[in-house]
Amino acid sequence: DSNLKIFTLNSNTALAEEIAQHVGVPIGKCSVARFSDGEVQINIEESIRGCDVYVIQSTSAPVNEHIMETLIMIDALKRASAKTINIVMPYYGYGRQDRKARAREPITAKLVANLLETAGADRVITLDLHAPQIQGFFDILIDHLMGVPILAEYFDSKQLEDLVIVSPDHGGVTRARKLADRLKAPIAIIDKRRPRPNVAEVMNIVGHIEGRTAILIDDMIDTAGTITLAANALIENGAKEVYACCTHPVLSGPAIERIQNSKIKELVITNTISLPEEKKIEKITQLSVAQLIAEAIIRVHEEKSVSTLFD
Amino acid sequence: DSNLKIFTLNSNTALAEEIAQHVGVPIGKCSVARFSDGEVQINIEESIRGCDVYVIQSTSAPVNEHIMETLIMIDALKRASAKTINIVMPYYGYGRQDRKARAREPITAKLVANLLETAGADRVITLDLHAPQIQGFFDILIDHLMGVPILAEYFDSKQLEDLVIVSPDHGGVTRARKLADRLKAPIAIIDKRRPRPNVAEVMNIVGHIEGRTAILIDDMIDTAGTITLAANALIENGAKEVYACCTHPVLSGPAIERIQNSKIKELVITNTISLPEEKKIEKITQLSVAQLIAEAIIRVHEEKSVSTLFD
Ligand SMILES: Nc1ncnc2c1ncn2[C@@H]1O[C@H](COP(=O)(O)O)[C@@H](O)[C@H]1O
Ligand SMILES: Nc1ncnc2c1ncn2[C@@H]1O[C@H](COP(=O)(O)O)[C@@H](O)[C@H]1O
Repeated sequence: DSNLKIFTLNSNTALAEEIAQHVGVPIGKCSVARFSDGEVQINIEESIRGCDVYVIQSTSAPVNEHIMETLIMIDALKRASAKTINIVMPYYGYGRQDRKARAREPITAKLVANLLETAGADRVITLDLHAPQIQGFFDILIDHLMGVPILAEYFDSKQLEDLVIVSPDHGGVTRARKLADRLKAPIAIIDKRRPRPNVAEVMNIVGHIEGRTAILIDDMIDTAGTITLAANALIENGAKEVYACCTHPVLSGPAIERIQNSKIKELVITNTISLPEEKKIEKITQLSVAQLIAEAIIRVHEEKSVSTLFD
Repeated sequence: DSNLKIFTLNSNTALAEEIAQHVGVPIGKCSVARFSDGEVQINIEESIRGCDVYVIQSTSAPVNEHIMETLIMIDALKRASAKTINIVMPYYGYGRQDRKARAREPITAKLVANLLETAGADRVITLDLHAPQIQGFFDILIDHLMGVPILAEYFDSKQLEDLVIVSPDHGGVTRARKLADRLKAPIAIIDKRRPRPNVAEVMNIVGHIEGRTAILIDDMIDTAGTITLAANALIENGAKEVYACCTHPVLSGPAIERIQNSKIKELVITNTISLPEEKKIEKITQLSVAQLIAEAIIRVHEEKSVSTLFD
């Protein structure tokens, strides 16, 4: 279908290539560079008039550069008469700033939704938002895909026995439940609490983990503090071995060192965020979301279906 | 007036301090930092409910970081019930991307105007836009201040004789005329043209410069290619000496080296963009726009006057 064009910005060109191959179209010709002073310079090098354009870009680090690239690309596409502008954002940055946890905080996840709309996006396709409520921040169409089936398929193929799926905090129990359903396993929850003020947190484990193979699951792993402490607590409390998994490998700051030194046997992630070479340690297995996204693009394009189909 | 609050973001804290001193209020308490993964973290540490808030931020390099800081700060201020949010942007980045010079280019200067409005800004106060037409990109109030009087005052105090004010290209003649009026001097224009395709450009000078002290003026100096070639051409064509001046010292890439090695005797700039220490070479004189901006803030605040008063 020559009306469907896929472009990539700079955050995740390898994933974009893979998606384009699955969809069966070449990546559109476009250069996304910087002027001498650091301003984004975009040249779309082929006509896109009347086309349904899909732009692949995660707003991973450097997040502000990647957001501005996206907004400027949308502006260029709009002015070049694209029929629809669809932003495929495998990782939606600023997702944790989704509420005012304290006075006078911004809600940047909502701001970014508004910015995408103002620039001229018609639709956003994303995976595992930090909170599903972020879908409601958009007045444009949003398709919300999930990484759990991809993670589940991988663990299924390993044929692990006596499994227990563990949420590292209260917020992630629904996600753990979804993985547990697919792997036909029970769940457990790490219930952190502070017994008295100014006393160290206690890692209380709710559920049976003794002698079992635990799989910790979260939507993203950033500095890896929570997940590595959880893994170590599981081993101390008698778990046989601990795997961990997440959709979005943010992996900033001390993350890689912490994972390396932790009791985690294997960390399974996806490629919604591309990993630089130095972060590709042996313990980490990266699965691809390319086919999932390609199928979403094809369904959106062919059926012009709405977001609820994908949930 | 306790209803007037001034905050600064990270681009130009020294100028912000100076402006606040002129206005006679302290800088508002606010931390503008980064989370581990590079996302902007803003904490406004005092109540601003019902206040007229002025935020000082140039969108100089790193421009995308500075734009996102601005938008997120606006979001936080809006949600904290500021009465009005006024963005003081001494340097308006992306000003050169103000039209489609080629097919399928973005108009990022317009996009940024829309983003500021979407985030919730009520007014923008800025200096020397690359093109005055950019004022029309805003549906919110915009005050457009000019650096020429500050530059003129400095040159006036030097009591130079036999002056000629030179525009380095056709686009800047109006600006040269304004400086010339204040210094009671004639103007000249560098008229670059390519005699035949694939032949080097010729620097033709329109106007009398022989034996005169030339002052080149531009709105901004970025890589300093244009201005240093112009200076050398003026000397070769018999100018006695060459000064150069601009409002916005972008000074990226080879700029400092080119200026150092050029025939420019002194380069006069303002502090709309803060200079790192290594760019503060002896040839460069930096003038402050703090008082000009402080007066604009006071007038806006007291008279609630509209933009035309400032042009
Ligand atoms: N990029 C970030 N890195 C670390 N913490 C963040 C980030 N963005 C927001 N937060 C904080 O994380 C909290 C929300 O995280 P959560 O409870 O997991 O939804 C909020 O209190 C935010 O202040
Ligand atoms: N940051 C930048 N650095 C260098 N050139 C730019 C920049 N932004 C835009 N331009 C180009 O500069 C031209 C406009 O400059 P001007 O003719 O001085 O208004 C346009 O053709 C743009 O492609």
